[in-house]
Amino acid sequence: MALREADTPIPAVNAAGAMATAEPAEVRRRIRRGEISGQTGGMALGRMQGNLAILPADLAQDFSRFCQRNPKPCPLVGVSDTGDPMLPTLGEDIDIRSDVPSYNVYRHGELADTVTDIGALWREDFVAFVLGCSFSFEEALLADGVPLRHIETGELVSMYRSNIDTVPAGPFSGPVVVSMRPMRPADAIRAVEITARFPMMHGTPVHLGDPGQIGIADLARPDWGDPPDIRDDEIPVFWACGVTPQAALRAAKPEICITHKPGSMLITDLPSGRA
Amino acid sequence: MALREADTPIPAVNAAGAMATAEPAEVRRRIRRGEISGQTGGMALGRMQGNLAILPADLAQDFSRFCQRNPKPCPLVGVSDTGDPMLPTLGEDIDIRSDVPSYNVYRHGELADTVTDIGALWREDFVAFVLGCSFSFEEALLADGVPLRHIETGELVSMYRSNIDTVPAGPFSGPVVVSMRPMRPADAIRAVEITARFPMMHGTPVHLGDPGQIGIADLARPDWGDPPDIRDDEIPVFWACGVTPQAALRAAKPEICITHKPGSMLITDLPSGRA
Repeated sequence: MALREADTPIPAVNAAGAMATAEPAEVRRRIRRGEISGQTGGMALGRMQGNLAILPADLAQDFSRFCQRNPKPCPLVGVSDTGDPMLPTLGEDIDIRSDVPSYNVYRHGELADTVTDIGALWREDFVAFVLGCSFSFEEALLADGVPLRHIETGELVSMYRSNIDTVPAGPFSGPVVVSMRPMRPADAIRAVEITARFPMMHGTPVHLGDPGQIGIADLARPDWGDPPDIRDDEIPVFWACGVTPQAALRAAKPEICITHKPGSMLITDLPSGRA
Repeated sequence: MALREADTPIPAVNAAGAMATAEPAEVRRRIRRGEISGQTGGMALGRMQGNLAILPADLAQDFSRFCQRNPKPCPLVGVSDTGDPMLPTLGEDIDIRSDVPSYNVYRHGELADTVTDIGALWREDFVAFVLGCSFSFEEALLADGVPLRHIETGELVSMYRSNIDTVPAGPFSGPVVVSMRPMRPADAIRAVEITARFPMMHGTPVHLGDPGQIGIADLARPDWGDPPDIRDDEIPVFWACGVTPQAALRAAKPEICITHKPGSMLITDLPSGRA
């Protein structure tokens, strides 16, 4: 289950620069027209970006419960009405069938297709869930002068399956997946202070220091993302990660489930600092 | 719709003193045995108390959405599995059919009965929602030296129907009901700082100063609770209030809906400061 986006088309990467200061509605229009199909990192800076999960209504209440019971990995920022593809609470004219650059379609837990529009797949019983992601708190950390190694080096953050269990709900369960950022202790303390303000973007860390305490045997071998570069004066700091609900969704093997393609998020109109 | 609890039995009030330092499980056992049927304020200090709403499953997803869309008035702290009266995420052996001192039963939006046990009414399609309340942030304000007039005078906090609309979900809609606490400006600022830490207990205020800006014509005439005593050097500070979902529930006129009787809350095992 690689989250490396080595196949991201070059035009999409170039688009990020031009799109950094664009209005979110303008970026979404370009996405809707198929002009942007890759990663959204760096686009419409200052606006909240979210992870996507679309499920049939018969699983929606259990997934709502799963998010409520596991707010750090699954911070719920928006839920559509059943069968309604619009998300007015997250922004103007958001049509979830077309406004995410790329979608992964899972059938019975297996990746069946990757598409740039799900209009043909949309059903009257679908419910769309949007979950907060770490982009916003990373923006806040950088703005406060807390360095983030993986951004400096242009790599993917290291992610690990921990031995912390989610609180199950219906068919949804599994371990909390964590992302790790190496920091000097003073920066780690400041990072706790800052991320406490962002409960809708995974909030404060779930652990810091000894990886063994949360069941991670070898930091050099992440389960997703790139291996980290940890310096002698740094400690690993672990946040709950949006891969957690993705993994729980796949493990539940619903008949159908549609997510964003990793890194290719929904850009909302909400300020990224919205708590 | 009076929230005055003039009819609260005296023994229950006396029980609060003895129950202040009791373990939450012990208080719930006494409630379950019918020894406590009144208000829970002041009991099991330091533990989160919650508002209750029980609905049939066909309305549960819309009510979940309503809470997600209106987190300040409706901070969702726990949701039961469908048909399951236990709430293990909120505490040990919590049976929602018996562990709240008094319940109001509404049929088609009208108060049909007030009972101390709902075992006979429980259905396989019921879902129980527990929402955070203001007790916990009031505890934190008092601990920080921010005075609360209605507690000093032993009255009910003043509550008003504002002109701020909730974001609707299915049959649930209506105005945000606010509670008002008069404060000197420096205390109001400190109160914002403190309540920011409690998003699960209504969080920061929704307004301060001119009541007219949120559609309140006369502070001396609250819609619920007691009239306030505001001094010359004080401003009114308004928080979203748990009466909001209660009013939305009644307005939706579900076939059946069961809530706690006002002031007679579920005492959880969670620390009251849990964000």
